[in-house]
Amino acid sequence: MRNFLFKIKYDGSAFHGWQIQPNGFTVQQAVKDAVGRIFNQDVTVNGCSRTDAGVHANEFCFNCRIETEMTCERIINALNAVLPDEAVIFHCEETDTDFHARFDCKGKEYVYLIDNSPYGNPFLKNRAYHYKYPLDEKLLDREAKAFIGKHDFAAFCASGSSVEDTVREVFSFDVVRNGDMVEFRVSGDGFLYNMVRIMVGTLIDISRGKIPENNLERIIASKSRKEAGVTAPSEGLYLNKVFYEDI
Amino acid sequence: MRNFLFKIKYDGSAFHGWQIQPNGFTVQQAVKDAVGRIFNQDVTVNGCSRTDAGVHANEFCFNCRIETEMTCERIINALNAVLPDEAVIFHCEETDTDFHARFDCKGKEYVYLIDNSPYGNPFLKNRAYHYKYPLDEKLLDREAKAFIGKHDFAAFCASGSSVEDTVREVFSFDVVRNGDMVEFRVSGDGFLYNMVRIMVGTLIDISRGKIPENNLERIIASKSRKEAGVTAPSEGLYLNKVFYEDI
Repeated sequence: MRNFLFKIKYDGSAFHGWQIQPNGFTVQQAVKDAVGRIFNQDVTVNGCSRTDAGVHANEFCFNCRIETEMTCERIINALNAVLPDEAVIFHCEETDTDFHARFDCKGKEYVYLIDNSPYGNPFLKNRAYHYKYPLDEKLLDREAKAFIGKHDFAAFCASGSSVEDTVREVFSFDVVRNGDMVEFRVSGDGFLYNMVRIMVGTLIDISRGKIPENNLERIIASKSRKEAGVTAPSEGLYLNKVFYEDI
Repeated sequence: MRNFLFKIKYDGSAFHGWQIQPNGFTVQQAVKDAVGRIFNQDVTVNGCSRTDAGVHANEFCFNCRIETEMTCERIINALNAVLPDEAVIFHCEETDTDFHARFDCKGKEYVYLIDNSPYGNPFLKNRAYHYKYPLDEKLLDREAKAFIGKHDFAAFCASGSSVEDTVREVFSFDVVRNGDMVEFRVSGDGFLYNMVRIMVGTLIDISRGKIPENNLERIIASKSRKEAGVTAPSEGLYLNKVFYEDI
């Protein structure tokens, strides 16, 4: 049995998220089915995290153990041939037997895209959040720096989440504009459920004056979900990079 | 009756081209229906050109005469509210009574996108041509300069086209790479049926050695469609800009 690390891109609008569930077709299911079809093996597919329905991945990592003598290149081509077009494996490498895509993950980078054009862009349907009101990316970039560091992010966790330790470290958080596109880029050692979407939604609430400037430290300290802003919609969110120590 | 010039973006994968036809939903039909629904008027919609099924528009221009007192801003919002999401009007202005989007057009710019990544990108499905073999964009950029100028482009016109005058002027033709994306950008006073797709396909044939370098002048002079290369697929083509003298 060889253990492989794979990297996959997927258009989240075609799936009900990553994780296998009884109702709805997921990326994990698509991968498990593809491996089953090519190798005639019922494998466990370990993802680096979950992504919600509608959330995209420029780079999502998973590992699984397969009995095969194929080269990595041939494995990629064989799996892509049977995967849906909306998911494409672009990297495969053999790893240590005990490598696990989730437990060995040291950090991730997410990107959130806002189409800030007045009327929307048909090429960004389901690929960015269309928000037509003014966004001052320089203000938001300054405000976002308050997220950087090791904090208890309980205020930025979807209520109802069962996670106990809500302390996470954010490494960087930048907001830049490129024409009509406003891009939020955040990296950290881990993220709570909906954390990036709540951070972005809170920044949008600051932009429209619903939350005053210079309040993020106070909101973080409150540890209260209701002090933070709205949850930005799923279609703007991309898992962009996954970090492993030895990779 | 006021005459309006509109600019619209559309995702060509959602339509059977621009022009109204008995079988298949087209952008022109969508616009005609939207105007009918908002203004209760049966209008003639004059497009700047036709685009084939699958071909996209970052900027396509059309004009039509509407009896209304609405402002341009309100007209845009009203029409976008009833147009399919895959087509978005982003500009409207009142013009001279006799302005005609096709007859007054002085030139156009097209962009052709090739996703030159090894395995393809799910976010570019139907939005770029996935071609995984090597493309030397510097060579193609040099070769493409042979298209510039006023030539009889009969060799680059789909066979069966009924057009009589096949002389056109190409103003510029550039090929650039941005990571895995290779972009062909061509402007001219007009283009024959499939002309851009045949020019791009011929450049691809040069890249893979099927047509030798430094042969485009000879191929143009031959005026023979069979001397030129393949027709590149529709999904990579975007009408990008439309030029009018007084706009």
